[in-house]
Amino acid sequence: MVFIISTTLKKRYQQKIIVKPKNLLALTILGNNSAIPSFNRSATAQVLQTQHESFLIDCAEGTQMQLSKYKVKRSRINHIFISHLHGDHYFGLIGLLTSMSLLNRTQVLHLHAPPELEQLISLQLNFASTHLSYPLHFHPIFKEGVIVDGKNMTVSCFAVQHRIACWGFLFKQKKNPRKLDPDKAKIYEIPAAFYEKLQQGEDYVTKKGITVPNKEVTLPATKPKSYAYCADTIYDETIAEKVKGVDLLYHETTYLKDLHERAAARYHSTTIQAAAIAKKGVVEKLLIGHFSSKYETLDAFLQETKEVFENTELAIEGVSYII
Amino acid sequence: MVFIISTTLKKRYQQKIIVKPKNLLALTILGNNSAIPSFNRSATAQVLQTQHESFLIDCAEGTQMQLSKYKVKRSRINHIFISHLHGDHYFGLIGLLTSMSLLNRTQVLHLHAPPELEQLISLQLNFASTHLSYPLHFHPIFKEGVIVDGKNMTVSCFAVQHRIACWGFLFKQKKNPRKLDPDKAKIYEIPAAFYEKLQQGEDYVTKKGITVPNKEVTLPATKPKSYAYCADTIYDETIAEKVKGVDLLYHETTYLKDLHERAAARYHSTTIQAAAIAKKGVVEKLLIGHFSSKYETLDAFLQETKEVFENTELAIEGVSYII
Repeated sequence: MVFIISTTLKKRYQQKIIVKPKNLLALTILGNNSAIPSFNRSATAQVLQTQHESFLIDCAEGTQMQLSKYKVKRSRINHIFISHLHGDHYFGLIGLLTSMSLLNRTQVLHLHAPPELEQLISLQLNFASTHLSYPLHFHPIFKEGVIVDGKNMTVSCFAVQHRIACWGFLFKQKKNPRKLDPDKAKIYEIPAAFYEKLQQGEDYVTKKGITVPNKEVTLPATKPKSYAYCADTIYDETIAEKVKGVDLLYHETTYLKDLHERAAARYHSTTIQAAAIAKKGVVEKLLIGHFSSKYETLDAFLQETKEVFENTELAIEGVSYII
Repeated sequence: MVFIISTTLKKRYQQKIIVKPKNLLALTILGNNSAIPSFNRSATAQVLQTQHESFLIDCAEGTQMQLSKYKVKRSRINHIFISHLHGDHYFGLIGLLTSMSLLNRTQVLHLHAPPELEQLISLQLNFASTHLSYPLHFHPIFKEGVIVDGKNMTVSCFAVQHRIACWGFLFKQKKNPRKLDPDKAKIYEIPAAFYEKLQQGEDYVTKKGITVPNKEVTLPATKPKSYAYCADTIYDETIAEKVKGVDLLYHETTYLKDLHERAAARYHSTTIQAAAIAKKGVVEKLLIGHFSSKYETLDAFLQETKEVFENTELAIEGVSYII
């Protein structure tokens, strides 16, 4: 896994994320703060970009402006996931939904969120006497399990422990096809019509009855990637099991370790608690965010977390983390 | 009336508005765009600052960030006015209300808005299981008339014509006291206890029965200032009567004059229509805003409007217009 952090602000603001090579995922941070925007940090929103589409995860106030600022195309977003109904995770949603309509979107948008949100959106549209230009499919989240079973990606939700009902999201790429070696396929005179079966791992049998082993003409598939987003949560060891072995784990660290009592009282986590989940979950990499507005700088967050789990990065606004 | 426009962006962003001399008003633009934020223009929000407090007028998404950016103190805001329930005028309200609570505000906040808004706020707070740290007094707007009768300012609302119920707001300073000339008051040996009556225009009668005419020891009061905000509206001549003679009139100009048919169809106004209202209303100065997202530059707006009403300015984000 390679993490790309662009070095200058100017570059970051102009950066356009292009997901290549194929089958990689790019997670772009649109906001990394908790509660109140402060020190130029926006509240929580992230976008997970694949080759095919983008998944928006939480949508704090100003997310539509952040999408523009960081050149993330709204038209690629087909699914939005809202973890819970605290404002710093969804107050930007209604603005984004109506702007998409004003821009004449026509394709379906799927919204996965706590059930109460449907009533709010409906009221806001009614009061404005507005009809969306596109179909909005609302999928209320009631229980853990698969919520999107797409062609290339499965998304599941899992419960985390917060002051109100709150959900984490687990994104798993589906099994990737094996890579065809076209030169070798030609040598064995395999017809192009059979290429898809080769990619699925089948051997080829020639007209003369000779078997060409699949491994002879294909290369191993890229390992499917996975990303887990843990939203807002108190320290909860059961999360480690739910995110077991993911390539990238995002876990909140609202407070530094000395404030563990305040963290627990507010159903949030500290640096070393996030690190403990990462370690216990044997994840590849940990990304920390949702920093309290009381902290002006973030160095201590990284330092404390790394002491327990070395492969940690800070979630920085405008940065895309390639998984 | 003096309009102060700071010349460089950098200066503007760092500018702190201090209202002096006494009894002047400063209108700071936090957003001047319609519908969708675009070309770095935010949607509608303004703050009218007096010596004593600040009045927030509309509250588009991102207003709380704009208040921070332009160093407008939230703690000075005691009244918020929402013209109508289109998102580009209120989607930032709930974020601001909850942030004020997270910052432990205790003083009363008065919210003047279309009645439906109360239900929305109540639902959003309930879903988040949040109780505000301060009393929020909701004042539903049903009809034209005085809605705030303060010590120094009267605020009235008036109907404008938009696609949904929409209100303009008229801010009028109360009659200012006459200015005392302390040197002359001493010469006539007028006791300090009588100064307030002098400021109210009374003559002073000495112990010997000699009348000191008020004009001998006071100077004329500053003329009370007035500001009218017309929100979103189709061209409506009756507005001219409602804003008659104000020092500053804000009128929307969503479109340039060639798009008058589109403006009418969408219940908006053009440049020359705003200018016609200003002319007919015999106002001192016109401020235009709520520019459509289709326009990248604004020069043509100013040019067209000035052709009909010379004393016009563009509403520019971050600029404070002193009334």
